[in-house]
Order: sequence, then C-alpha cells, then structure tokens
Amino acid sequence: MTSTVNKTAHPFDKPRLEALLNRRFFYAPAFEIYGGVAGLYDYGPPGSSLQANIIAEWRKHFIVEEHMLELDTSIMTPAPVFETSGHVARFADWMVKDAKTGDVLRADHLVKNVLEARLAGDREARGLAAAPPTEDKKKKKKAAKTTAIKLEDEVVAEYEAILAQAGALPLLLYPLQARRSGPLDNYSGADIWELCRKHNLRNPDTDNEVGEPQLFNLMFTSSIGPTGQHPGYLRPETAQGHFLNFSRLLDFNNGRIPFASAQIGRSFRNEISPRAGLLRVREFTMAEIEHYVDPEDKRHARFNEVRDVKVVLLDRHVQEAGKSSAQEITIGEAVDKGIIANETLGYFVARIYQFLLKIGINPQRLRFRQHMANEMAHYATDCWDAEIHNSTGWTETGHPLVVRQALKEPIVFEREVAEWDKKTLGKTFKQDAGVIQKTVEAMDQEQLVKVKGELAQGKAVITSSEGKQFELSPEVLTIERKTIKQSIREYTPNVIEPSFGLGRVLYTLLEHSFWSREQDVERGVLSLPPLVAPTKVLIVPLSAREEFDPLVKEVSSKFRKAGIFARVDDSNTSIGKRYARNDELGTPYGVTLDFASVQNRTMTLRERDTMDQRIGSIDEVVGVVTDLVNGNIEWEEACQRLPAYDGVQAIE
Amino acid sequence: MTSTVNKTAHPFDKPRLEALLNRRFFYAPAFEIYGGVAGLYDYGPPGSSLQANIIAEWRKHFIVEEHMLELDTSIMTPAPVFETSGHVARFADWMVKDAKTGDVLRADHLVKNVLEARLAGDREARGLAAAPPTEDKKKKKKAAKTTAIKLEDEVVAEYEAILAQAGALPLLLYPLQARRSGPLDNYSGADIWELCRKHNLRNPDTDNEVGEPQLFNLMFTSSIGPTGQHPGYLRPETAQGHFLNFSRLLDFNNGRIPFASAQIGRSFRNEISPRAGLLRVREFTMAEIEHYVDPEDKRHARFNEVRDVKVVLLDRHVQEAGKSSAQEITIGEAVDKGIIANETLGYFVARIYQFLLKIGINPQRLRFRQHMANEMAHYATDCWDAEIHNSTGWTETGHPLVVRQALKEPIVFEREVAEWDKKTLGKTFKQDAGVIQKTVEAMDQEQLVKVKGELAQGKAVITSSEGKQFELSPEVLTIERKTIKQSIREYTPNVIEPSFGLGRVLYTLLEHSFWSREQDVERGVLSLPPLVAPTKVLIVPLSAREEFDPLVKEVSSKFRKAGIFARVDDSNTSIGKRYARNDELGTPYGVTLDFASVQNRTMTLRERDTMDQRIGSIDEVVGVVTDLVNGNIEWEEACQRLPAYDGVQAIE
Repeated sequence: MTSTVNKTAHPFDKPRLEALLNRRFFYAPAFEIYGGVAGLYDYGPPGSSLQANIIAEWRKHFIVEEHMLELDTSIMTPAPVFETSGHVARFADWMVKDAKTGDVLRADHLVKNVLEARLAGDREARGLAAAPPTEDKKKKKKAAKTTAIKLEDEVVAEYEAILAQAGALPLLLYPLQARRSGPLDNYSGADIWELCRKHNLRNPDTDNEVGEPQLFNLMFTSSIGPTGQHPGYLRPETAQGHFLNFSRLLDFNNGRIPFASAQIGRSFRNEISPRAGLLRVREFTMAEIEHYVDPEDKRHARFNEVRDVKVVLLDRHVQEAGKSSAQEITIGEAVDKGIIANETLGYFVARIYQFLLKIGINPQRLRFRQHMANEMAHYATDCWDAEIHNSTGWTETGHPLVVRQALKEPIVFEREVAEWDKKTLGKTFKQDAGVIQKTVEAMDQEQLVKVKGELAQGKAVITSSEGKQFELSPEVLTIERKTIKQSIREYTPNVIEPSFGLGRVLYTLLEHSFWSREQDVERGVLSLPPLVAPTKVLIVPLSAREEFDPLVKEVSSKFRKAGIFARVDDSNTSIGKRYARNDELGTPYGVTLDFASVQNRTMTLRERDTMDQRIGSIDEVVGVVTDLVNGNIEWEEACQRLPAYDGVQAIE
Repeated sequence: MTSTVNKTAHPFDKPRLEALLNRRFFYAPAFEIYGGVAGLYDYGPPGSSLQANIIAEWRKHFIVEEHMLELDTSIMTPAPVFETSGHVARFADWMVKDAKTGDVLRADHLVKNVLEARLAGDREARGLAAAPPTEDKKKKKKAAKTTAIKLEDEVVAEYEAILAQAGALPLLLYPLQARRSGPLDNYSGADIWELCRKHNLRNPDTDNEVGEPQLFNLMFTSSIGPTGQHPGYLRPETAQGHFLNFSRLLDFNNGRIPFASAQIGRSFRNEISPRAGLLRVREFTMAEIEHYVDPEDKRHARFNEVRDVKVVLLDRHVQEAGKSSAQEITIGEAVDKGIIANETLGYFVARIYQFLLKIGINPQRLRFRQHMANEMAHYATDCWDAEIHNSTGWTETGHPLVVRQALKEPIVFEREVAEWDKKTLGKTFKQDAGVIQKTVEAMDQEQLVKVKGELAQGKAVITSSEGKQFELSPEVLTIERKTIKQSIREYTPNVIEPSFGLGRVLYTLLEHSFWSREQDVERGVLSLPPLVAPTKVLIVPLSAREEFDPLVKEVSSKFRKAGIFARVDDSNTSIGKRYARNDELGTPYGVTLDFASVQNRTMTLRERDTMDQRIGSIDEVVGVVTDLVNGNIEWEEACQRLPAYDGVQAIE
C-alpha cells in the first residue's frame, strides 16, 4: 500500500535539471575560476560516486561475469603507433576560420546550421506553421539566428538536398569506425569550400566570410622525454591498447578464441567547438570491450541465457522503408530471422540492454539501430548502435557494436624459434627426424625456453607424444629469440566492440531520472536506482543537538558495517529542506532520528519517490534498508515489514 | 592442522619475480612492438584486476568509511592554472646534455653516480672490503662502472661531503611539496655546473663531457582547441583539481570544516630518464586525499578508534641521533607525547597503516618516517612519509603526510551579494536597521536567491532570529550576483594529504608477496591476500573432456552467484602445471573436478600457500571458499569444515 507518484505531472525542463546538477555539484565546468575551458568538466561528489557506481556495475556485469581480460594501458602514445593505425592521417574534422576574427568553426556544423536557419526563415516568410520546436531545434536556432526571408523554390530544394545528403551519412573519414559518424562526412574539403562559396555561407556569429576548409586532427599532441625528438599523442580511444597487446592476451588465454579484453580509462579528443555538455567533451572516460571471435564460428556459449530477452530494434529494412517505428523482439527471434547477423552480436546486444536497464536507463527510451549498408565500413558484416533517447534526440552510447577485422596492421612480436640443422638431423635420427620436428613444433614458448636452457648445458631430452625420448644436441637444434613480423594469421579474428562513453550514459541517466513533484515544480527529484545512487541513505537527526550524537554514531556505524554508504545531514535547517536537498542528490532512503528515537530506539524510514514514511526499531530499519539497497526486496515488501509512520509531527 | 610453509627458504630473487610478472602479464612495457617507451607500462589482466581491487578497497576504506567527498577532475589543464600555482616555473629537474651524443641525463643522478663510482674505485684500490652489495648498490654500479683508482685523501673527503649534503635533502624546488624530494635539491644549476667542471664529471656511458645544466619542466605540454593559442599541461598530480573546487566542496559540506576530498586518477610527469620499473614512471594512477582542518583545532572525532593501533615510527630525534632503529608505539602514545603533532595527523597515520596491511603489505617492512626540520617547507608543522621497504630500499608510497596551508592562491568565485541603501534603510527602519542587516547577512546563498526573487516582485519579507518580521523594498535592498576575488578567509584551513602512487604500492606488494617453493626454486608463488587477488578461485577440470562441462558450468555459476571471481582453466596440461601457473598469478584457491566429482558431486579444494587439499560436496566447498574470500573465516577453520583429501591420485 504505497503512495502513488505522478512523475510526469510537469514536462521535462532541461534548464531546471542543469541548474540542479550544477547546484548540487554533480559536475561543473572545469577551471571555472580561470574562465573555464570548453569541453572540460569536473565531477563533484555525487557525480563521481554515480560514475564510480556505474563503473563498478559495468565491471561486475561484463568483466567478472563474462571472464573478460582486463587491461589498463597507457594514454600517452608515441606517434608511430597512430601513424600506423591511420589516426594521424585521418582522425580529423574539417574546420573553417572566420576570415576576420580567426574564430574556428567545424565546417559541417557551419553548413548545417546556416542552411537550416535559412530554410526556417523561408518557412516563416511563407507563413508556414513551424514544426513544434524540439529541444534540438531550439538549440540550433540559438546557433544561427533565423530571419524571415523567402527563398526561391529551387534554392529550397537544393538546400534540402544538401542536408538530406548530409544526413544520409558517411563515407567515414576514419575507417576503423572509431571516429563518431557526423553529418557531411561524405563531403571532401573541396566540396565544402565549393558549398561555402556558392551559397555564401558565413560565420553566423559575425556574418564574416570563412576561409578554405582545413583538416584539423583531433588528437592532442605532446612530446615524450627531454630531447623533444619523440612526438606523442593522447589516445583518442582505448582500442589501440587492446590491439597492441593482442598476442599477450591470446597467450594469457592459453591461445584460445573467443575471448574479450576490457578496459576503463580516459581518452582525449581535441574537439573544435565542444558544446553539448557531457555529450561531446574533450576528455572522457570510456569503458571499452574488444571481443575476439572466429569469423567462421560466431556462436556464443551462453546465447541461450539471453534468448528470451526482449529488445527494441530499428533494423535496416525499417529505416530503408522510411519508417521510424522500431519493433520489440526477442534476441533469439532476431538472430533466428537473421535480423541480427549472429549469436555473438545478439548476445552482446542483450547484455548491453540488461546493463543499461540495471543502472536505471528507461527501457522505453532505449533502442538498437542497425547501420545502413552505406554507413558501414567495407569490412563490417553487421553493425548496431545502442541509442538512448534524451532531450537532444537519440544519442549513441559509444562505439557501434560492429563486427570488424582485427589486426589490420602487421603484428610484430618476439618468439623463441626453433632452427634445425636439417642435414645433421636427418643423418643422426633417420626416420625419427619427422617425429622429432613435430614434437618440438608442438611446444609452447615455455617449453621451448626450457629446451633452450638444456641445450645451453649441452643436450636436451624431448619426449614425443607416443612417449618416445630423444636426446638432441646444439648441433641439431638451436633455439633463438627472434622478432617476428606477421601479417597473416591462421585466421584473423573478428572483433565486436561494445563500448560506452560514460559521460553520455551518465548524463542521459540523469535526464531519465529527473522529475518534479506534482505539487511543486521547484522540488526536483532524481530517481536514481539504489544500485548506482551516490549515497544510499541519509541520516537525519532532528537537530544538531548533542543528545542525538550517540544515536547518529550508532546508526552510522551500523550502516557502515552493513556496507551501505550513508551520510549524516545535521545541518541547521528543517528536516523537510534536508530531504528536499537529498531528493535532488538522488538519495533513495532517509532515516530520521528524533526524541522518540532517543526514548524508544525507533527510527522513521522515508522513501524518496513516494515520500512514504515507515517506522521500526533501529535494527529493523537498518535491516530493511540493507535489503533494499542490495536489491533483495522492493519497497512494497519493506512496507510489509515496517508499519506506516503516523507521527504527530508532519515533517514535510 | 595445516601444512607448515617455509616462505623464506630461498632469498628474494628480483629477476625471477620480474620474469614472472612479465610472463604472466601483470604488466609489460607499453608499445613494446614499437620498441617501447621508457616509463610507460601497460597492465595486463592480473595487474589490472589487482589494481582495481586495491582501488576498490581504498575507496571503501577511505571514501566510504570516512564520508569523503569524491572528485574526478580534468587531466588536461590550461596553462594559467599551473602558472599561478608555481608549477610552470618550478616543477622541474636539472638536466645536462652529453656534449657529443646529445643524450640527456638528470644532473643530480650524474653527480651522485659518478662520485659514488669513484669512491667505490678508491676503496677497491685501497684494498678495503666493499660493503656487502645491496640491491641498491648493484644498480648504481651498473649505471657507472667502477675502476680501481686511488684518490687523494682530501678528494675523498670532498666527494663524501658533496654526497652527504646531497643526502641531507632539500630546499625543495617545488614549494608545495608535490615534487618528490630528490638528492641535490639544495644545489642550484650554477652549483651543479661548478661541480661538473671542478671534478670533471662526464657522462659515464660515453665518457663525454656534459654541457651546462638546464631546467627541464616535468609537465607534458599540449595545446587546447584548434587555434593553437591555448597552451595546456597534463596535470602532474591531482591536487589542483581539489583546490580549484574548494569553494564548491565547502558549500557541498554545508560550509563546515573538517572534511576531506578524495580522487583517484591519472597524472603525468615527463621524467628525464625513468628507470626504476613501476617506481618511477611517466604516467601513473594516484589516489589522493586532501583533508581540510581548522588550524586552531586539529582534534579528530574518531581518534579514539585508532588510539591503540601500533605503528613503527622513525621520528626526527632518532634520525638526528644517527640511529636508524625505529620504535613501535601506539598512535595514542605518539600523539600524547607530541611525537606526532596532532590527532588528525595521527588518525591518518593509523588509517594508512590499516589500509596497507589489509591489502597485504608486510608490517615488518612498513614504517612512518618524520621529515627533518630542514626537509620541510616553511609552512609545514609536521610531516610524515609512509615508507615501504622493497628491494630498492625504503620507498615513499606517495606524497608525504604533511599539514600544509591550502588556498595560497586567491579564490575567485561568484556569490549573491546584498547591497543596502543605508540612508533609506535608516530612515525607514530607524533602530531596527541593525537587526535587519544582521538577519540578511546571516542568510546562505539559497535564502538570498529567494529574497532576490521576492524583491523582483516588489517586496521581500524577512524574519529576524527573534521572530520579528520586516518588509523590505528594492529601494532599501538589492541583491546581485558578483564575482568575488578573495585572498583572505576567516581562517585558512590546513590540509593533510595522504596520497598513494598506486604503481609503487602495487609493485611493492608484489615483492612482499613473492616467494619460491622450498623444494623447487623455480616454482614461484605470489601470496596475495584474497581481498586483492586478481582471481579468487581457479576451477580445474581434470581435462577438457565434455563430460566435465556441465559440472564446470554449474560450479562457475555458483561462484558467480556468490559474487566470487572465478576462472576456469581447462587447458590441455596437467593439473599440477595449471596450479603452478595460478600460484604465479596469486590465485588463493583452486577446486578440482574429476571423475569422483561426476559420480559423487564432490570437489577438492586446494589452498595456494600450503598446497593443502580438502574435499567436500560441491555446495560445501563453494560455501567455504565464499567465507574465505569474504574474510569470514581463515584457512584453519576451513580445514575444520572440510576433511583432508587423501586422494589416490597425487595431483602435484
């Protein structure tokens, strides 16, 4: 018998959410007192805890449960690595400079914003009702002011064609698909320059002309060591750290495929003009998985465990037909019908879905969108984006879930290598020579090192698989450590890359969690699930008076021992105000210590969303909260264990 | 009744440990296949998991238990921040260049290595028995070859004086104490240049002369944004991120002190010639705490909880007396006697001690060393280093635990500010004017915003602390948001900085955990505590035959549900070899599934250090392992719950 809560009494109000996040220090522009730097943010206590909790769950959900191989690799990277990978040549955006002020704009944004503003002005001049302004459009209007000027019909058609082509997406600049796809990716610099001149595209902020587009590499540059002779880059993604360690990882996994490596870490992109809050930043934490799979066998051993998981898919055919209605379907059916190409891809779609739901993403606003054939790189067989809806539209959570060829670069590594004096071998061992060779070839690196050691002592004894022993001398066999460059493997594993930009997920989760009380729009609430909520329970003594101290300490200590992260708020303000503050912080539970607590050792328990209040003995309440936070019970059951509080004192 | 284990049968063998760590991919030089880069390392699966487990425990031990305010701030930092803080001018080492090859050397290392090598050569020439070579000395000998040449007596005395002075430590170059103190810090560039010329100090690798010492700033430089006009640095420590957010943190804490902020993150130092493995690297993860305390009141609310913790202290007086024997003492006594300056400092010494023990550091090799008066910056009242002993000697774990003044830079922030028309105020309210002013002055920012809103509507009603109400008009009071630059606070909090360089702690922990089996020196073991061990239990089926599959899945799933990180090793090698491999990986427990398991649903349990084997039903063994890993029982108790395994089959 819990209270009903209307979370949609008020429409979503982004400025109100942003004010809350800033006021409560979820995050804030970094270096604010130095004027700030676009695209750099500091996470405060609730944001950091929320992020840490999401990461902990990600680690549990993916690394621990799937037995992935975790990595933590260098951010600072010597230039040759990114020269080989193609990042130095192609990890870039087109930029244009304002001819007078020197301000720099992203070329694709310029084209899109100016043309859209002109089309909007045209519609206004024609007296056409504008489409209801979405959050998205509001933002663009800000970027390029609309003036009501009518355009020629053919000009309108031309603009629309350019924008449609821009929307139809990419020949990606960066072939490894690591670069997020943006509009106008199928335009070259010359094409964009042509557009600027033909349509007189100017910087909307100053109305000045712009110069010829130039490629701007998005990697931050640096220099390693004191001589200045070793240029370096900050990695723009963590993937290289996985691929460069592939041989070691394969060894670690006893030479077997499939397996996955996983890494959580910072990456850096020197965005030209970052503007969208946490959605596009210059420094970000990623959680990346590389799952290596045999291209001939993409079954997944645990596929049956997810077969019945229902997800929302927006597949290629639906998009081609111009429909936007996605279908709800089980993963099993989607793979059986060939909508998702194989079990492994389907397995990860399901696991990502489960993870995002677990941390509190609204399933109604989560879908998987298949890439169109022309969006995919040539090597990709199938590609899906996990997209979450927020006030800017559908936003990718990270890299697309694409099957791609790994190891496009030659692998260079060191190996113990056996070399035979074939002549001596034949002479000495006659018909056994073949068995001997096979036996040594079957040895792993460790065994070779052992044999090498024995040879250094004068002789090595080896045992064939049939149990026959042979004594080898250094004249017959030498074992040497060699550098090997290998561009063809027996097979090249395919790679599936489920990756999250944590800032994007975190911000969208905050949007999904935010609502205002029906009776008072100013009272914002973040309904974060206990699993990820920064603080699990607030301890609220009636006042900061000393008589409450022993109880506050006792309750704190009990929660600490139960492993529940609690905070005390004994600030000098009403209990209602303290609860309101913690609604904004997303704290799911609150316990109040008052004079009754001192007398009877009872405590009231308040649930954030419903504001329900229950009462019980201190130990009972601690037990119920522990069960709630650990996900053993829901609030309904808590209400069965604790009677409603009918206190004389109305505390909200 | 457990087997006795002799962990010190073989002396510590560093190359053997290093080979193990590399072979098992705890960590490896980064970009190895591109030739590597000094001072950059990649952590492989066991190293990453170990690090993640240490961090999780750190977060629990400090952030959660002490209610610290967590932060996650930007690494990329605009130049003005580090200009103000003094890092641009002073976060530097002296370097010298080889006059012919251009190779760069750290000036202090050059002086120290060359002089020590000459003194060693002198001792050899004089036929004096060299001191037994410690690991430390071996390393230095490698750096500068010793030749047996006798020196004049006065030259010996002079060299010894230089080295003694170098050892006596610093006028730190970097006054905020963030720069680790190094030898020769009390020499200026001119002094070092003078030394080089007077004593003909040459590059020991080439015997070439060196050029004049130059300051080399250790911060990696970069450039933010596309214009190239905004230089940036990668932070060399996380402290600035704390201090820049101090006002927000104080607000978050309801304006109260003491409180602590905490942050785990990467920092970067462009070391001139990093050489000591994980102990001195160019990119590292730090866990930093800044605890802000009232300089007039350094008591700590939870001091009594640690009063009886015994630690080993090497205090100033013992060092002055030239003794190196540290004393074991309780924290309570140390503070009572004034050996440790105050409760807060003592509290953190105890908590650090508890943390390091929990993760497996050997208490015999852990001490706290007090800085000598001349080691401390002028503002410091007391300063302690947590030092852990490893094969290179006593190594600081991170920053010293120093009390320092925070906020040496002026704070700039925005605030709602009340401004009065004093004339109108006096005229209107007469003798109440003072009460009214006091009432508004006592308001916090939220209340001021509320009053501001009411004033915008025409009037605001305020209530004095005596309950008297006054109606104010915009003519009397205006409230405006203003940028405030403040260099003096009511008081400047002192800061205590307990900080860890995680790589150092991790490497030293690996050293403390490493030993070889008495019967076979080749069989290395890492006795990591279950709390931090990368994998908690290894599941070993007798072979990869299909008949074991259902059991392997069942046991895996049971451990997964119990929250225990398990791995299966069904590789095609003997069970003994698989256990040996996992001894190297530090996995504390192993369970074996054999034909008896299939028939009787039993499993054997093996303990890593003792190699004891017990047997029980699958569920019993899972239960015992869960209790062991969660720290509820010790191995002795496990042996009471499970009988010894007297299997026919000897599996090691």
